[in-house]
Amino acid sequence: MAGFPGVKAAPFTYASHVLAVASAAMVLVWCIHFRGGLAFESTNKSLIFNIHPVLMLIGFIIVGSEAIMSYKTLPLSHEVNKVIHLTLHAIALVLGAVGIYAAFKFHNESGIDNLYSLHSWVGLGTICLYGIQWIFGFVTFFFPGASPTLRIKSLPWHVLFGLFVYILAIATAELGFLEKLTFLESSGLYKYSSESFLVNFTALVVIFLGASVVISANAPARGDAPQGYSSISEN
Amino acid sequence: MAGFPGVKAAPFTYASHVLAVASAAMVLVWCIHFRGGLAFESTNKSLIFNIHPVLMLIGFIIVGSEAIMSYKTLPLSHEVNKVIHLTLHAIALVLGAVGIYAAFKFHNESGIDNLYSLHSWVGLGTICLYGIQWIFGFVTFFFPGASPTLRIKSLPWHVLFGLFVYILAIATAELGFLEKLTFLESSGLYKYSSESFLVNFTALVVIFLGASVVISANAPARGDAPQGYSSISEN
Repeated sequence: MAGFPGVKAAPFTYASHVLAVASAAMVLVWCIHFRGGLAFESTNKSLIFNIHPVLMLIGFIIVGSEAIMSYKTLPLSHEVNKVIHLTLHAIALVLGAVGIYAAFKFHNESGIDNLYSLHSWVGLGTICLYGIQWIFGFVTFFFPGASPTLRIKSLPWHVLFGLFVYILAIATAELGFLEKLTFLESSGLYKYSSESFLVNFTALVVIFLGASVVISANAPARGDAPQGYSSISEN
Repeated sequence: MAGFPGVKAAPFTYASHVLAVASAAMVLVWCIHFRGGLAFESTNKSLIFNIHPVLMLIGFIIVGSEAIMSYKTLPLSHEVNKVIHLTLHAIALVLGAVGIYAAFKFHNESGIDNLYSLHSWVGLGTICLYGIQWIFGFVTFFFPGASPTLRIKSLPWHVLFGLFVYILAIATAELGFLEKLTFLESSGLYKYSSESFLVNFTALVVIFLGASVVISANAPARGDAPQGYSSISEN
């Protein structure tokens, strides 16, 4: 993917950090202040559910966003950045898996059906593709590592497929916010309440976060000769 | 946006046409066979609603998809393609606006609140941005037209912003499928019924359509020297 004329990654990575912190704070206010808090074991099963949006947004999407941007944000060598990139993505995968486990646990302990909604379908597809992408990236670029020619040929596909999966993750989050809020509203939550607005605005911030991360991944790093993604971006 | 090594637009434009026809057929089967048909005036207000998904998918997204791909799919001169591109986008905008009107009409005649859901927020934002994008494109590239230098500088931004709005439109459709199906299921539709699966699979086909259109817009046309988007894509 090419950069855009005159666009550097830096302002978009800064914006992404700010949007990430804002959306993290918003989802915590929602789940703790409005929804009663977080717990893996509780007779109040809603507290088990609450772990799901918190881990999927902060653990999966935000850690994944920082992983995507790591080549642009960190003033380190290419090799160190690569280890940070794959480690952050691994952390995102694990936290995402735990977050999905929390949703199943909530369903099972509350007698709610599993895997009937579009959110669950797209979400499971997304984390499977994320895992496949991670394994391919690890094998091709880290250990044992493909030949230099194959690496150069693979990199734009790694970026393309990675951003596709990332956009799917953002879309899944939007579906999740809508689904949960629709359930709450059909159970009596006022449609124009502070909580409803908070959830919708959190979802909007997540869209802007996603757009900002995608742009920064396609823009060259500022300053010195770019490495990693941007070494291909500028071909 | 750059093309990817060895990737031509043609297979993706063919796939897009097939996915467009499939999703159009699926939304028609849903709204006509399962949901009773379409009507602008009816005592059965659900028939007014049914116009909304049909026009938003076939009118807005599919016509818009063909507009995006027109430079790649049609063996015509750049100037003719440009007129087709902007005309199809104008048709998509008008049909999208009528589709949104149908949703408001259904709400108003059924006593349902307007503009509380994430679907409505993101959807209205999307069609506003789509309209702004169309006006900017018209003024810059058609009439009166900017200077050649400014056109060349503007084109990658036109493509970037256009694809951003297009991805938002796809995401809005996903939100709409999920929202409507959640309402139907909370009113008694079995979660694993044929209709539920049809709606979810339609939504999946729309995701693949969106991905295919975005890839084809970034890939060079096959055969002779590309014009339009790809003249920048290959710089």
